[in-house]
Amino acid sequence: MTSIFDNPATFAEEALDGFVAANRQYVARVDGGVVRSTEMSSGQVALVIGGGSGHYPAFAGLVGPGLAAGSACGNLFASPAAGQIYRVVKAANMGGGVLLSYGNYAGDVLHFGQAQQRLNKEGIETRTVLVTDDIASAPIDQFQNRRGIAGDLTVFKVAGAAAEAGLSLDDVERLAVKTNYRTRSLGVAFDGCTLPGADEPLFHVPKGHMSLGLGIHGEPGISDHEMPTASELAELLVERLLQDKPDDAGTRVVPILNGLGTVKYDELFLLFGKVETLLVAAGLQIVEPECGELVTSLDMAGLSLTLLWLDDELATHWSAPADTPAYRKGNLSPRAPRDTTALIEATEEVEQGTDEAIRLGEYAASALDAVAAVVAEHETFLGKLDAIAGDGDHGIGMRRGADAASAAAAEARGTGVRNVLLQAAEAWSEKAGGTSGALWGAALTAAANSLGNRGTYGDQDAADCVNAFVSAVIELGKADPGDKTMVDALLPYAETFTHEQSGGATLSQALAAAAKAAKRAADSTAELSPKKGRARPLAEKSIGHPDPGAISFGLIAEGVANTLEPLLKKRGA
Amino acid sequence: MTSIFDNPATFAEEALDGFVAANRQYVARVDGGVVRSTEMSSGQVALVIGGGSGHYPAFAGLVGPGLAAGSACGNLFASPAAGQIYRVVKAANMGGGVLLSYGNYAGDVLHFGQAQQRLNKEGIETRTVLVTDDIASAPIDQFQNRRGIAGDLTVFKVAGAAAEAGLSLDDVERLAVKTNYRTRSLGVAFDGCTLPGADEPLFHVPKGHMSLGLGIHGEPGISDHEMPTASELAELLVERLLQDKPDDAGTRVVPILNGLGTVKYDELFLLFGKVETLLVAAGLQIVEPECGELVTSLDMAGLSLTLLWLDDELATHWSAPADTPAYRKGNLSPRAPRDTTALIEATEEVEQGTDEAIRLGEYAASALDAVAAVVAEHETFLGKLDAIAGDGDHGIGMRRGADAASAAAAEARGTGVRNVLLQAAEAWSEKAGGTSGALWGAALTAAANSLGNRGTYGDQDAADCVNAFVSAVIELGKADPGDKTMVDALLPYAETFTHEQSGGATLSQALAAAAKAAKRAADSTAELSPKKGRARPLAEKSIGHPDPGAISFGLIAEGVANTLEPLLKKRGA
Repeated sequence: MTSIFDNPATFAEEALDGFVAANRQYVARVDGGVVRSTEMSSGQVALVIGGGSGHYPAFAGLVGPGLAAGSACGNLFASPAAGQIYRVVKAANMGGGVLLSYGNYAGDVLHFGQAQQRLNKEGIETRTVLVTDDIASAPIDQFQNRRGIAGDLTVFKVAGAAAEAGLSLDDVERLAVKTNYRTRSLGVAFDGCTLPGADEPLFHVPKGHMSLGLGIHGEPGISDHEMPTASELAELLVERLLQDKPDDAGTRVVPILNGLGTVKYDELFLLFGKVETLLVAAGLQIVEPECGELVTSLDMAGLSLTLLWLDDELATHWSAPADTPAYRKGNLSPRAPRDTTALIEATEEVEQGTDEAIRLGEYAASALDAVAAVVAEHETFLGKLDAIAGDGDHGIGMRRGADAASAAAAEARGTGVRNVLLQAAEAWSEKAGGTSGALWGAALTAAANSLGNRGTYGDQDAADCVNAFVSAVIELGKADPGDKTMVDALLPYAETFTHEQSGGATLSQALAAAAKAAKRAADSTAELSPKKGRARPLAEKSIGHPDPGAISFGLIAEGVANTLEPLLKKRGA
Repeated sequence: MTSIFDNPATFAEEALDGFVAANRQYVARVDGGVVRSTEMSSGQVALVIGGGSGHYPAFAGLVGPGLAAGSACGNLFASPAAGQIYRVVKAANMGGGVLLSYGNYAGDVLHFGQAQQRLNKEGIETRTVLVTDDIASAPIDQFQNRRGIAGDLTVFKVAGAAAEAGLSLDDVERLAVKTNYRTRSLGVAFDGCTLPGADEPLFHVPKGHMSLGLGIHGEPGISDHEMPTASELAELLVERLLQDKPDDAGTRVVPILNGLGTVKYDELFLLFGKVETLLVAAGLQIVEPECGELVTSLDMAGLSLTLLWLDDELATHWSAPADTPAYRKGNLSPRAPRDTTALIEATEEVEQGTDEAIRLGEYAASALDAVAAVVAEHETFLGKLDAIAGDGDHGIGMRRGADAASAAAAEARGTGVRNVLLQAAEAWSEKAGGTSGALWGAALTAAANSLGNRGTYGDQDAADCVNAFVSAVIELGKADPGDKTMVDALLPYAETFTHEQSGGATLSQALAAAAKAAKRAADSTAELSPKKGRARPLAEKSIGHPDPGAISFGLIAEGVANTLEPLLKKRGA
């Protein structure tokens, strides 16, 4: 049960503020997350980590000398938005290049990827190392598809120590890659966690049972077991991890026994004792182990065991000192506080819109109101559909995004359509989090830039806008037709729209026909087997049910067509 | 739910072993607890802390440079036994005197008190400072009766820093007393914790409610509330603590927001932010706060807020560096590991028993078998009786003690009665924990020493033994007749025994009559209102029900009389 809050909607934000209040000697708040509040060396590599909230001490608790320079912090279990990540990096950057590191989840990959593109374009050299330690999430030959869980700590620690030691971005990246390659984790769950304001856990494990490999957001596990004894559990975890060990592993290992929230310290220690005995019996040498709560999942009942196989250089960086709110090791010379007010960025000025662009901006704001209404109407349905083979957050995520976009667009009424859509895009991306938030943010941004700020708008502008919207989703999401994603509704939408326009249909007729095509195509995704995104790990369960992202796009397209129809008809369009 | 174990009976012991395995750079295992594994300065004061297990990082997690020299660790929620505390202190002592500090609970007071007596007798100067920070447990004019909760941390931290700074035992004690005097805590509970192997929580808080002031072992709170918002909760806690502030408080405070187990980090941070705002608004200056899990209670849902009002010297010691498994602050020069094998004590030799003492030893072992059988038969009944106004552990505690005593006595068969009873006493005290464990251990020790190792035994020896048994309980427990404790059954037992003997009754007749008197007296305690011990805080609930400790003594006295009767009759006694 998560019991302490005023308003569930602002929980993550208020928790982050309180975290900073309790740790001012370490961190300062910036828009989107936190950065160190103490001096850093000019020219040192900045390790920026991040992800959804609810995993403390991951991620904000690991910011400080010897570890991360900053952390981008999303909503509960939702990726921070690209704009937030961008701003945290700008505040953390010391001119020596930036390494982004985070667990491999689709939403994070999208948002951090967008931020990385923008930073590199601006001349801030930025690289990415994904953490992929969870052996339950994909077989060894698909190592790069594995999820990141408590292995976050080994990768962040080694990369952070390397950055502190003044190594180059090339070296910091190389060491992070090597650490991830030599890290394996396996988790078990005994019960789910409860989001603030919810009456029921996000997921359940049957009483007296244990799910092996169940993810920290309730992602499906690989097998169900009767609750084992501590000795049996230690054997199971150690055996599976040793079977999966990297090539050239050597005999030195760091074991990390991590509690996810409500498996408490005495239990973890008891299990650790048994794990240590088994590792020693397997001929391994234990180096500076950790046993505690390091990557949590609110009040989830579960734990994971991580092994990092050391070589000489990893051993040096694993043993190096670090001083952060939640992870402290060895002795570092004290760091002076720095002036963090200068780290806050100036905001951009809004361009003056043309009369026509302002009128289109009004239409766009009305269309976004319709989007919010449609999403609100279908929120529960979308959540249930997503829960069949995903994490069930598509309804709430779309709701958050659409509400925020609608509010931001209303706020921007009276400015040009480009600004209205850009504000909406930013708001959607930041509030929705997750994969769909990134995709909708990118699509609206592309539509905004396509429409620009012109004196007049014609049919070709509408077609270009539709195509820009669709292309942005394809480019960012990297899904192919038939992969069972939103793309399977978007492509028929764009094709029908163009086809109708070239056949002489009015704009409102083309929008209506395209929406119909999108809805039909979305329904047809039921027959497909997912290749990408949220439903991939549970492919079988997904068959027979349509893709939630395609369905929500179809519903939205219909709502937008219906709302714009009377406005466009008045103008004979 | 506490899920990870092999055998609930050995949970605490195995957890402590695993804790040491994960923290060898800090601690070494000794019989009864842990001591630092790194060099200490000769002549420095040794701070030894301790209490029941299940409160990690209290107490073993706070052992290291700048904090405790050692920790005595009892069973779950049960005091370590006097012998264990004694051995931990012997290993931690550096020749500069010893400060014992722990939360104010009856069982701990008894066992640590016994250990302190023994240490002082041996010339190891030992003082005690109790932690009494929980404002819900007694009004301000009974400050010394308050329980210790998360205020443990402030007292230990200041005393540990003072010891590390090389201050004298007088000064370390004075600073600990002052810190306790300037520390206030108030806790709330949302749900109880579950002991390993139990299906149900140890106690419940109604769903959607919060109990204000409920103790960390389920001790009763002061009021029940509907679940408040975070802002309301912050106001309630801050207001009550500020009302209770010490004289000459000043304006500098250390807030410690402590999670008890399943109220997780984001929730604690969110609440901390609101607490900080209120404290600042009250004109207070926040100094180096803490927000996290510092004194827990297994998987209990609850939290507490502690305030320490600093003066200059407390501020110095609060800010001083410390380096322990669970609490690290500032920078301490690294300490070299020390050879901890030398810290293990040699065992005493057993004296050769006389023929008569060996025969009496057989009787004693048989009597202890009877005690174990009686306690096993009534375990559930005693637990339920204790739960009416206490913590419900009298049944399980007596069972653990009696079983261990019976096994130890069986092991010692063939040696003299003194040794048989001493082994039984030590085993009872160590395995039972709690108040009754301390009292039974002290009583059996006194009986053992009274009987000694003689060539012959007569009626007067039996009377002396009974009186020694009863006197030891009165002396250690400091209860008066009518306080509703075990003493109310013991005194009638001793009086009847003496009266019957002087009236010419045989030993077995006297034992039977005394047992009958004890049972009658135990039943009569139902009318009394408790003045001492477990039932005091819930005095009203207790009226109408007899005292569990008196009842268990009566049942045991009857069982012993029945078992010894045929043996004694054979000898005409």
